[in-house]
Amino acid sequence: MSTDQLNELPATEIVQKIATGSISAEAVTQACLDRISAREDAVKAWAYIDPAYALTQARILDDTTNKGPLHGLPIGVKDVIDTSDMPTQMQSSAYEDHQPKTDAACVAILRAAGAVILGKTVTCEFAGSFPGPTTNPHNPSHTPGGSSSGSGAAVADYMVHGAFGTQTGGSVLRPASFCGTVGYKPTYNLINRSGLMFAAENLDTIGLLTRTIDDADLLMSVLLNRPRSEVLPGDAIPKIGLCRTHHWESALPETIAALDDSVERLTIAGAEIVDIALPSSFADLSAARNALNDFERSRVMADLWQNEPDHLSDNIAKQLENGTSMEFATYQNAVILANDSRAQLDTVFGDVDFILAPSATGEAPEGLSYTGDPQFQGCWTILHVPTISLPTHLGPNELPVGIQLVGRRWRDETLLSWSRWVVDKLGTWR
Amino acid sequence: MSTDQLNELPATEIVQKIATGSISAEAVTQACLDRISAREDAVKAWAYIDPAYALTQARILDDTTNKGPLHGLPIGVKDVIDTSDMPTQMQSSAYEDHQPKTDAACVAILRAAGAVILGKTVTCEFAGSFPGPTTNPHNPSHTPGGSSSGSGAAVADYMVHGAFGTQTGGSVLRPASFCGTVGYKPTYNLINRSGLMFAAENLDTIGLLTRTIDDADLLMSVLLNRPRSEVLPGDAIPKIGLCRTHHWESALPETIAALDDSVERLTIAGAEIVDIALPSSFADLSAARNALNDFERSRVMADLWQNEPDHLSDNIAKQLENGTSMEFATYQNAVILANDSRAQLDTVFGDVDFILAPSATGEAPEGLSYTGDPQFQGCWTILHVPTISLPTHLGPNELPVGIQLVGRRWRDETLLSWSRWVVDKLGTWR
Repeated sequence: MSTDQLNELPATEIVQKIATGSISAEAVTQACLDRISAREDAVKAWAYIDPAYALTQARILDDTTNKGPLHGLPIGVKDVIDTSDMPTQMQSSAYEDHQPKTDAACVAILRAAGAVILGKTVTCEFAGSFPGPTTNPHNPSHTPGGSSSGSGAAVADYMVHGAFGTQTGGSVLRPASFCGTVGYKPTYNLINRSGLMFAAENLDTIGLLTRTIDDADLLMSVLLNRPRSEVLPGDAIPKIGLCRTHHWESALPETIAALDDSVERLTIAGAEIVDIALPSSFADLSAARNALNDFERSRVMADLWQNEPDHLSDNIAKQLENGTSMEFATYQNAVILANDSRAQLDTVFGDVDFILAPSATGEAPEGLSYTGDPQFQGCWTILHVPTISLPTHLGPNELPVGIQLVGRRWRDETLLSWSRWVVDKLGTWR
Repeated sequence: MSTDQLNELPATEIVQKIATGSISAEAVTQACLDRISAREDAVKAWAYIDPAYALTQARILDDTTNKGPLHGLPIGVKDVIDTSDMPTQMQSSAYEDHQPKTDAACVAILRAAGAVILGKTVTCEFAGSFPGPTTNPHNPSHTPGGSSSGSGAAVADYMVHGAFGTQTGGSVLRPASFCGTVGYKPTYNLINRSGLMFAAENLDTIGLLTRTIDDADLLMSVLLNRPRSEVLPGDAIPKIGLCRTHHWESALPETIAALDDSVERLTIAGAEIVDIALPSSFADLSAARNALNDFERSRVMADLWQNEPDHLSDNIAKQLENGTSMEFATYQNAVILANDSRAQLDTVFGDVDFILAPSATGEAPEGLSYTGDPQFQGCWTILHVPTISLPTHLGPNELPVGIQLVGRRWRDETLLSWSRWVVDKLGTWR
């Protein structure tokens, strides 16, 4: 096998081949570094990477006989998640060269399973909406989405096999949809958040950017100490809830087309598809999410806001001003609305196996100053349900357009199983 | 006023007197330092304190014309909560001299409101159950409880006016009950946890040790940007649910007597008291809490467990072994039981205004190697309800015995209002 394909193989194949000794961890890491070397000037996905150090880690793994389930697999880490051997800089001058003491929980677990922590991926400033330098790997004049910009772009561009992202509004699924890769936001709190710099702790969820469902499932099986999710038979017949959400009017033609096409082809594949209308009270979840975000972020960042405000963008300063002056009753009402809405989810789901919904408004918008509209992702984030963007479609500018599947809380394996089934039926955009 | 009483005054009086200029912040801090100087050899409540630095902070506040709502008030911080100007050492040699970059959210907010962060209080190792050196201020051969050992002892011993603690099992309310002070665990996630070293993030709750309800309410009003809670009229008539919980058989005579006496005197004061029996399924919450604790802690500490296990006590190592080997299904079932139990809370509460329950098994046990049984606190922690221990009674060894009040989630002000009413009726142990 030629070394320059190793960066493109699925993670599941990489770990199998390393386990059987047919390839080395060093060769896999070298293939990723070669791709980065060729493409990073255009994509700008990495906030920190030390090629020599990465190769050293890979060589150490090659010399280790006790092989973990991810032995030799390169992984990227969004730069708001702590790493003990690399700085964690939050895309902010306030955290320039900041070196955490320990790995975040999610990093330590993958590392203990043999992963090569390849480097830190670009985040929007403090996982908010003020973008870093990353471009869309399919057209550098378009945004990659955010705030997990570097993770989405690096995985889609074959620079690394998988990466951690985080989602407070739409920060995992939107870059996944825009870059054309799998973006999986688990149930809230499923991936341990120790070592994550919070944005808003009632919303923040660590997720994964990967190229296949199997790769996301592999990483989750290690993070959670669970078996791989069930592979459903091809003739399984799901009942699917089609949910356009309260934000449907912002869907662009390519997103409407992607949903229409999905409905048509999944119906042909045997699925029963029913419309699901969200309760009217859910329309207020968007404002509630903003209230949670600003109130909590103003507390998370209270020290910086007091002592180093010059390091902060106007964008984030506006949120901090709003959150600092917000009366508790506004926040309290938002939390109670969110809790009450979650309590209605069993009724919303009824007897469907999963929900099909828009993933983003459309293709990645042109320009790098705005990472796109988070509404289609954020309305599910505040509900704490697991969601996944599947890289199924293309838009008019030949840029990817995803579709979103939504599962029940704490039933992530079921969502992953059905996601695999859906991708098998619809194929991917490339 | 004599300076040596300032450490004993309620926080509410301190901030009033400083605001009107009748006392200085320096005098208040000096009074606390004098008390610490006299008593610390016996009590051992402080993990870190720099008297000269504390006085400097107080003097700077005295020179500041723009006075915040906590101007000059000394506050202690449990040593698992980050401070930008003092080490945060987790009662572990693995974190010796560890200096965080920024203040935790809760510290930054109080500091911005004018509080003097006096020092760091002793915690059990990583807020678990392996104790630090702190003794019970009322009898040094007895435990102060844990894991917020130093916060409970320091506040009870008039070393500081209030302190942050954290509760994952019973770590705020048990030291409060054993040391004879107010211990308040808010609704889960009400006090922002950014900058807290997690033990188990589905359980960890930052709380307060204070000497009065008004003092806890004052600090919460600043942390949350809300008005002070309502002062109920003396002739208010609550309906109280008396809940002995599934752990009643472990209640010692003094706890039984404290509840009996409370029921008798609150009835005389006009309260209607009804028995509340928890659903039988709640009996499994204790095992569920242990599963959450061990599974999540093993992830939080994955880096240390891999790389510095020699720094860890056998006590915590056992939890980490258990959590690392735990299958996800065990954890998942525990989370689902906890969620389902929370969904039943409206039914459990019915129409009562609050629940009255045992706070701890009894007086602080003799010996410093065991911080006491957490069951009476932990069964409420996993339910995410606000709870408060009131310093109302004394046991056979002249050590304090608290009672516990429990409120509805996100209705903390109501619980604080009724707590004030109950203390007014029952008085305190000293």
